[in-house]
Amino acid sequence: MPRPVIAAVGTSRIGRTDLPGRDLFSVALAEAFEGLPDPAELVGGVYVGNQSENYEHQIMQGTLMAEWAGLRTVPAERVEGCAAAGALALRHAVKDVRNGEHEGVLACGVEKMTAGGTGGATDALSAAFDRALEQRSGVTAPSQYALLADRYLHETDATETDLARIAVKNHANAAKNPRAQFPEEIDIDTVLQSPTVAPPLKLYDCAPVGDGAAAVLVTTAEIADDLGVPWVAVDGSGAAANNIAVAERNMTRIEGAAVAAETAYGEADLAPEDIDIAEVHDAFTVCEALLSEAVGFAPEGEGYQSYRPAGERADGWTDVELSTSGGLKARGHPIGATGLLQAIEAYEQLTGGAGDRAVSDAEHALLLNEGGVADAVTVVHVLSAEGAA
Amino acid sequence: MPRPVIAAVGTSRIGRTDLPGRDLFSVALAEAFEGLPDPAELVGGVYVGNQSENYEHQIMQGTLMAEWAGLRTVPAERVEGCAAAGALALRHAVKDVRNGEHEGVLACGVEKMTAGGTGGATDALSAAFDRALEQRSGVTAPSQYALLADRYLHETDATETDLARIAVKNHANAAKNPRAQFPEEIDIDTVLQSPTVAPPLKLYDCAPVGDGAAAVLVTTAEIADDLGVPWVAVDGSGAAANNIAVAERNMTRIEGAAVAAETAYGEADLAPEDIDIAEVHDAFTVCEALLSEAVGFAPEGEGYQSYRPAGERADGWTDVELSTSGGLKARGHPIGATGLLQAIEAYEQLTGGAGDRAVSDAEHALLLNEGGVADAVTVVHVLSAEGAA
Repeated sequence: MPRPVIAAVGTSRIGRTDLPGRDLFSVALAEAFEGLPDPAELVGGVYVGNQSENYEHQIMQGTLMAEWAGLRTVPAERVEGCAAAGALALRHAVKDVRNGEHEGVLACGVEKMTAGGTGGATDALSAAFDRALEQRSGVTAPSQYALLADRYLHETDATETDLARIAVKNHANAAKNPRAQFPEEIDIDTVLQSPTVAPPLKLYDCAPVGDGAAAVLVTTAEIADDLGVPWVAVDGSGAAANNIAVAERNMTRIEGAAVAAETAYGEADLAPEDIDIAEVHDAFTVCEALLSEAVGFAPEGEGYQSYRPAGERADGWTDVELSTSGGLKARGHPIGATGLLQAIEAYEQLTGGAGDRAVSDAEHALLLNEGGVADAVTVVHVLSAEGAA
Repeated sequence: MPRPVIAAVGTSRIGRTDLPGRDLFSVALAEAFEGLPDPAELVGGVYVGNQSENYEHQIMQGTLMAEWAGLRTVPAERVEGCAAAGALALRHAVKDVRNGEHEGVLACGVEKMTAGGTGGATDALSAAFDRALEQRSGVTAPSQYALLADRYLHETDATETDLARIAVKNHANAAKNPRAQFPEEIDIDTVLQSPTVAPPLKLYDCAPVGDGAAAVLVTTAEIADDLGVPWVAVDGSGAAANNIAVAERNMTRIEGAAVAAETAYGEADLAPEDIDIAEVHDAFTVCEALLSEAVGFAPEGEGYQSYRPAGERADGWTDVELSTSGGLKARGHPIGATGLLQAIEAYEQLTGGAGDRAVSDAEHALLLNEGGVADAVTVVHVLSAEGAA
């Protein structure tokens, strides 16, 4: 069975941009294929993560992006699981390579959230909530996650200040990431004094809206070696859809994330304590706490300590560094591209390309990308550096 | 490598219905799993073909349908390639089973086209056309296909009456199909005297708008035998995205369909002349003509003779029977479900369940499902009856 690896990566600028989605993609693709043969020589299939047709009134993004990559008559399709779309695209690429369906697959994601469309981002994202049970009450993403945060603060020793410190950490990381939408450090007061969006969540507890595209070439280790490019192996991939309505499940034990992680760990033959860096879908600060617990980095109720340096956390915590990219919070969260932006952070960290934010001796990474509220759907990947122990 | 088979099928009623999409799906699922163990015992993953979030303002149909099937924490996602979404779902199920990812996968499709939503079906479908190059001129699906039809009538000996006869044949087939949206026979004059939609296409050249859901269980031949149910093997699966804008490609040689068919024939080790029955995405009558040529049933320029009995067609035609279900034209075309409705027709024909419309001694079927205009994306499957030569 071939070992699937990420061998090339690229992104557009993330944030409010002047470019339409297809051109954001072109920018990402050009970076990824700089110095490589044309995509047509390397790519046998294309998966595009894209959340909503409404931003640009455009479906069939699979065909469109394949065409924009200069490819004709290859399998190409859009995959969608709201904000998990990007990791679903990566997952298909990884499966196709390891199963011998193709030797090279392009996994990409694109979202043009600032294009407006019908109702803008708030309306487009609300389509991820259950139409029959949730949408009629006018819920938004922050209001749904506020339920989780409220419950988490009630059940654990965490405070609003703890959650704020997660945002502070992630902005500090973003300040060292040239790809970040908000590469500015902030302090606790910036978070605590920012406008309330849905109590207890304030503006700086929330990931921003933004445009962005990301492109990742998945191929075999052999081909990457032939191309002479550094690579990172994707040794585990898990996915799990719990259910769609938040009221119908446990809000602080993210079961679907635990199941997806278990699958990914199992495939990679690794455990939580083996992981050096992780991106865990901090769409809201509380997510980093909840998901650190779900994937086994932190004991139950202690995940909020993710902002503390390894060694100063509660017993049972691993030494993992979280959201080194700046996370969704500060690197940015262009929905369909996010799962691939996470993969790009892992690629840069594990190939020595993370510059000032490099985690020394990092060998293994975990990526967790979610769609809907918490584990409506979760996709987890476990990656290893070339030559990792 | 396990041999993937279709072992259970079900549909909702097709047409204008009172049920929301999730309940249409429940009806389809209940039929498919009648007499079988619960889905939770058989299904390791779920793929949902769904075209537009706008009909019901609902994305994340993967999670939603998995939940409605009683499944929790399994991989579930929506796939989208406009009207090819259903076959893309089937293709993923087939790949997962043959690659050993899962032993049972649920491939389903659902579309609630009559729900209205933002702009209704015409607007939702127009999102499949290139936003930059086509949408701004106000094109619709019939107006795009009219370009193909006009060109086809110009290049070949086909007449509008020939195209009308395809509709007449497909309605006659639908009259024998209890699943059909329009199970009524029509005559040539019904077509020729129907209102012009986009010349040369008239109302009866066009597939209807309708709601519908379809569910198909893909598993291994061994498990199907253990369950004691008839099965049909899916021995070939091909997909190809040509490009999105019609003006940028040849309108009468459907290259993407030819490539996808070549892949599927190759995997199944079968040739066009081996195929006994086929469903070739007759969204408009001219499609049946064009696609019969693309997949090798008919010589170039002779595909319009698909309505003639085998033996009365031009030299070089095979004996294949087309659109035995009634096709998109008369069985119906609930977009995301269509590719699976095609699979269900093949299942019924190849397992002796096609009643009055049975094609005697049918052993091999070809299914072609398209998204966008013609080969914006094409998915082809080749199926074989149990024990087929």
